[in-house]
Amino acid sequence: MMQKNVPEVVARRLPRYYRYLGELLEKNIMQISSNALSRKMNVTASQIRQDLNCFGGFGHQGYGYDVKELHSFIGEILGLGNHYHMIIIGAGNVGRAVANYPGFKRRGFVIEAIFDVKHELLGTEINGIPVLDSAGLADYCREHHPHIAAIATPKTAAPDLVKTLEESGIKGIWNFSHVDFECSIPVESVHMSDSLMTLSYRITQED
Amino acid sequence: MMQKNVPEVVARRLPRYYRYLGELLEKNIMQISSNALSRKMNVTASQIRQDLNCFGGFGHQGYGYDVKELHSFIGEILGLGNHYHMIIIGAGNVGRAVANYPGFKRRGFVIEAIFDVKHELLGTEINGIPVLDSAGLADYCREHHPHIAAIATPKTAAPDLVKTLEESGIKGIWNFSHVDFECSIPVESVHMSDSLMTLSYRITQED
Repeated sequence: MMQKNVPEVVARRLPRYYRYLGELLEKNIMQISSNALSRKMNVTASQIRQDLNCFGGFGHQGYGYDVKELHSFIGEILGLGNHYHMIIIGAGNVGRAVANYPGFKRRGFVIEAIFDVKHELLGTEINGIPVLDSAGLADYCREHHPHIAAIATPKTAAPDLVKTLEESGIKGIWNFSHVDFECSIPVESVHMSDSLMTLSYRITQED
Repeated sequence: MMQKNVPEVVARRLPRYYRYLGELLEKNIMQISSNALSRKMNVTASQIRQDLNCFGGFGHQGYGYDVKELHSFIGEILGLGNHYHMIIIGAGNVGRAVANYPGFKRRGFVIEAIFDVKHELLGTEINGIPVLDSAGLADYCREHHPHIAAIATPKTAAPDLVKTLEESGIKGIWNFSHVDFECSIPVESVHMSDSLMTLSYRITQED
């Protein structure tokens, strides 16, 4: 089913499809017409078909989509069945927000440890997850082979961390620090301030 | 300078330009060639020129860009000189992370109040910002006219909140709740789980 060279804009739509189909399932809605789905997603029905065709296509009956089937089809494309082991670096507000985010475990992301440099936090737990000493990060990775590291540190700490993580065999970095960096493994950044500036721009355009 | 109908993809690049130019200023780098800027931004030099042309264009000398001038030009497009008054609804981990985020004030976003339903939090402060009772939200808005509301509540609370905020004359919503909604005013959403699913997808593609 996997296919290389899927346009990034298509890949970026998949989580939204997945999230919305999950909401339908929660409401016990098992079937949706392609028109209703496209209205909700703000793309045309033919765009949705094209998007799914990038992954070999999805059996599209005349009456619409089987919600459960499409949900698990997209979940599989997104790799959500892989059971990722995740660590968080930085136990500040953002690290805590990630540690407490509901629904990650259900989607296969299990947070195993949180690392911090503050000695008073060591030995404590956040949402049942132990806080460990950042000094032991490289050793921990060599021993436990986590797949994903969320970086929730101040931006000055990020570049050195990225080097350590790359060398330790991590598969992907989820970056909350306020900096972009080049890296040999996949990095996804959540730049909160970019989002706020976009909102400011849109408010300015409305005036 | 403002211009309607700027492609969304252009508008979305502006915060990154702004952020990167700010980093250069912090390092006292006052001039950058269009090639160096384009390499860093991962778009072509002519794309940057085209992007800036959407806003009437930016005086582009032969030697490259004046960093300070371009930074404030883009800041103005983004409306960062407007001095927004902001409120946060929800004093959980995400609300706290927003309240403690460094650099918002410097960019003109001043957080005035945080609202929560938990009575034990009322009268406390987060990063010097008072926590108020959510029951008083509509009255507060009528009296103080905040411009931006950040929604950091559980998703079940969001739809009613949005209605209250729309009616109260708020100019824009910054949404951290795990749900999309339709709204007559600009909404920018930070969907953390979408970002994590995109990372999972990219890791899966690498394998």
